[in-house]
Amino acid sequence: MKLITTALSACLLLLLSFTAAAAQFNYKQPEFLQTAESGAYRASILYFVEDPSTTAAITDAVRYYADGLLIIKNGKVSDVGDYQQLIKKFEKKGESIKINQSYQGKLIMPGFIDTHIHFPQAEMIGAYGEQLLQWLDKYTFPTEKKYADKSYADSMAETFIDQLLSSGTTTALVFGSVHPESVNALFEQSERLNMRMIAGKVMMDRNAPDYLTDTAQSSYQESKTLIEKWHKKGRALYSITPRFAPTSTPEQLSLAGQLKAQYPTVYMHTHLSENLGEIKWVESLFPEAASYLDVYSQAGLTGRRSVFAHGIHLDETDFQELHDHGAAIAFCPTSNLFLGSGLFKLREAKQAQRPVRIGMGTDVGAGTSFSMLQTLNEAYKVVLLQQNGRDKIMALSAFEGFYQATLGGAKALYLDDKIGSLAPGHEADFIVLDWKATPLQTLRMNTIEEQKQDELAQLAEKLFALMMLGDDRNIAAAVVSGREVYKK
Amino acid sequence: MKLITTALSACLLLLLSFTAAAAQFNYKQPEFLQTAESGAYRASILYFVEDPSTTAAITDAVRYYADGLLIIKNGKVSDVGDYQQLIKKFEKKGESIKINQSYQGKLIMPGFIDTHIHFPQAEMIGAYGEQLLQWLDKYTFPTEKKYADKSYADSMAETFIDQLLSSGTTTALVFGSVHPESVNALFEQSERLNMRMIAGKVMMDRNAPDYLTDTAQSSYQESKTLIEKWHKKGRALYSITPRFAPTSTPEQLSLAGQLKAQYPTVYMHTHLSENLGEIKWVESLFPEAASYLDVYSQAGLTGRRSVFAHGIHLDETDFQELHDHGAAIAFCPTSNLFLGSGLFKLREAKQAQRPVRIGMGTDVGAGTSFSMLQTLNEAYKVVLLQQNGRDKIMALSAFEGFYQATLGGAKALYLDDKIGSLAPGHEADFIVLDWKATPLQTLRMNTIEEQKQDELAQLAEKLFALMMLGDDRNIAAAVVSGREVYKK
Repeated sequence: MKLITTALSACLLLLLSFTAAAAQFNYKQPEFLQTAESGAYRASILYFVEDPSTTAAITDAVRYYADGLLIIKNGKVSDVGDYQQLIKKFEKKGESIKINQSYQGKLIMPGFIDTHIHFPQAEMIGAYGEQLLQWLDKYTFPTEKKYADKSYADSMAETFIDQLLSSGTTTALVFGSVHPESVNALFEQSERLNMRMIAGKVMMDRNAPDYLTDTAQSSYQESKTLIEKWHKKGRALYSITPRFAPTSTPEQLSLAGQLKAQYPTVYMHTHLSENLGEIKWVESLFPEAASYLDVYSQAGLTGRRSVFAHGIHLDETDFQELHDHGAAIAFCPTSNLFLGSGLFKLREAKQAQRPVRIGMGTDVGAGTSFSMLQTLNEAYKVVLLQQNGRDKIMALSAFEGFYQATLGGAKALYLDDKIGSLAPGHEADFIVLDWKATPLQTLRMNTIEEQKQDELAQLAEKLFALMMLGDDRNIAAAVVSGREVYKK
Repeated sequence: MKLITTALSACLLLLLSFTAAAAQFNYKQPEFLQTAESGAYRASILYFVEDPSTTAAITDAVRYYADGLLIIKNGKVSDVGDYQQLIKKFEKKGESIKINQSYQGKLIMPGFIDTHIHFPQAEMIGAYGEQLLQWLDKYTFPTEKKYADKSYADSMAETFIDQLLSSGTTTALVFGSVHPESVNALFEQSERLNMRMIAGKVMMDRNAPDYLTDTAQSSYQESKTLIEKWHKKGRALYSITPRFAPTSTPEQLSLAGQLKAQYPTVYMHTHLSENLGEIKWVESLFPEAASYLDVYSQAGLTGRRSVFAHGIHLDETDFQELHDHGAAIAFCPTSNLFLGSGLFKLREAKQAQRPVRIGMGTDVGAGTSFSMLQTLNEAYKVVLLQQNGRDKIMALSAFEGFYQATLGGAKALYLDDKIGSLAPGHEADFIVLDWKATPLQTLRMNTIEEQKQDELAQLAEKLFALMMLGDDRNIAAAVVSGREVYKK
């Protein structure tokens, strides 16, 4: 049997070479396809141009090619569309496109964007800790201590980025530890892969163990040095990262705000209104502030490229303020459920008259998975449960979910001209999804495929099944800046 | 390098054979170990003798052997304990124990017990359906229709049981479809593997499509025939299965109650108080009943071996009534979150002065996973979130979680003398768990193992990580009635 298969394979290869040779007889491969970080990928292709929950028709938001072709030139998308149409277009120019990677039957979409995750918490994922404040003391702080050691941080940076890529995440907004070493380790590793990575050193000058605190002045200086070193170096971007209001003195927050004013294209990344105990604590620490959000706003930390993780207990005034400032919330459902923090009000946050920018976050280590698919599973559940008892419920559709995990995240980060999309001109960060990575998924997807329905309706059902049943096994490959950096 | 490894392995094998031969020189293998459905397994071994959330010390509830030996004789546990001690005990009798399966480094525990799942919904798992009543109409009923066809049901029975076993579940309490064919198909397949399976045909004579309804009389007669055929045949047990109050006329419920009285060892399995819309509907259909539960109680359906799925919106009176009758609730967290039904009040249900028996249920297809590990992940989250805002929170510990998924489920089913435990005399249904099935799990488990702490504290942390990060990949093998029926 094996011999026959080998013989058949050999014949097939010969035939293919012959066909390729014949094709090349008339046409020549365009020059750019012969450089590194370029290539042509055939697969089903999906990306978004708008939020599908806001457009009159799904087709206004979704771009989908069942048999698609994605052409990458020097790390950017140069062309995308229907395979047959694109091939013909090139033929007219006397050029042939050689598919260097065929993923037929699989789905290409933009790489996932994780808008809130902690680098030094990977090894403590799933640690039993009850609620936020106890969990910080018992697990988080002792673990983060290890990242003062650069060589430890180096080794973990590799693990961390492996986990991101094997889960389909190509860009992340990342908390380091308080140690500049952690940020250097992470950026050095992401630079090797030419990933668009956003990270910052934690600023924390009170209410934490001595071994993890900086001072207002040292945190300012260290952050400034890191900004000068990394911000916009290659694809790296820096985020000013006060942990959260309770662990920063007003002086530290004020200096963070000064930094943000000095470097307006730098990010600001912190936590906001996650847990009821935390909120009470903030009220007692900042009695003069009008709200938890106001603590950050007064320090000049609420603006474009400000990303607040959680925001579970925000009210209408807060949402309006975030909208007015162009700031974003990272919605972290697995973490919010794991720490029993509450149910994020996605529908309120996205209200049409003052939508707040929303990205999805795994929040590992409080989040229980690196996988954006598992994160969408729980996002769906949180959105539904949060509306329980209402007359009219607006669930998280698969299209909206995958939008939030790609273009939605890019918009939250003001990077939608660069990532989160496969429209020409975007950076070539994408993933290849296997629809049927387990026997159960195969059963479910086959059942959907057997139903008679139109292409987009079928796609919606398959995407929904993927976000309910999927995990890292569904990520067949990840491509960053046009280079395949992960293959299952 | 490979050659050296091969040579070393060969030497090691030779050495081992020599040692085994030497051992057998003095001792003989006990006779029972040479029969089928018998064997000796070396691994870490865990099972429960009590609910760890109720005992003064963990050691009162947990039996754990880091290097354990489990001896199976004719499909039942004949001995369990510390490997060295048990080996010595046999040596004293002049017998040697040959380990036919060594799983050192892995964990053996009783097979999981799924106390609520739907056989004819496997292929519609993860179907986008908003809340319960819409989801039933749009997906469930059309799917269940297919199970009128015996050959389709046969083929799906194999798939369904494969899914159970590969997820570590060795006993399930199962909804069939309305068609007796579905129940015959399932029991025929479980009989082949000698599984302890509990199932019943759905009774449903109103408020459902014509193609899925029976009549009060036909459902009584068909159920009776199935009971006579299957109940206590081998390891099969029957459950009288009215879908839920809204789809049964009072006459059908009353006949179901008659059946239960005629066959007191038969189970009763239905749904209760899952969704707010459903509860209102029951109130309008049964205006004379004191509560939703009372609809079943009046029909004589609330008693020992009555299992009610969900029970999310029950109150103190209901819990007392369930306790008084010895009835059980199946807690189905992934389903309750997926359909946005609400948060089950585990702590109220288990109150010490009138505890209600609780089993874990996946509730596939509304549940989003066959895996009891993923079910425990969400159970933890539900239990924590449900207590949000309280002064004192009692989380679901890993010990309590795994207890609920094994012995707790067995107690809910009044089968704790047979399954859910590895104490001698119990049926040999167990699973072998791989602690480190993914790179992330390996990272997490290694981190825990490196910490200095006592054996049970370390076990608790590893079990907790397993219930947060685990899935079907962690099930290395499943043994049913002493025979290995699944191996990864």
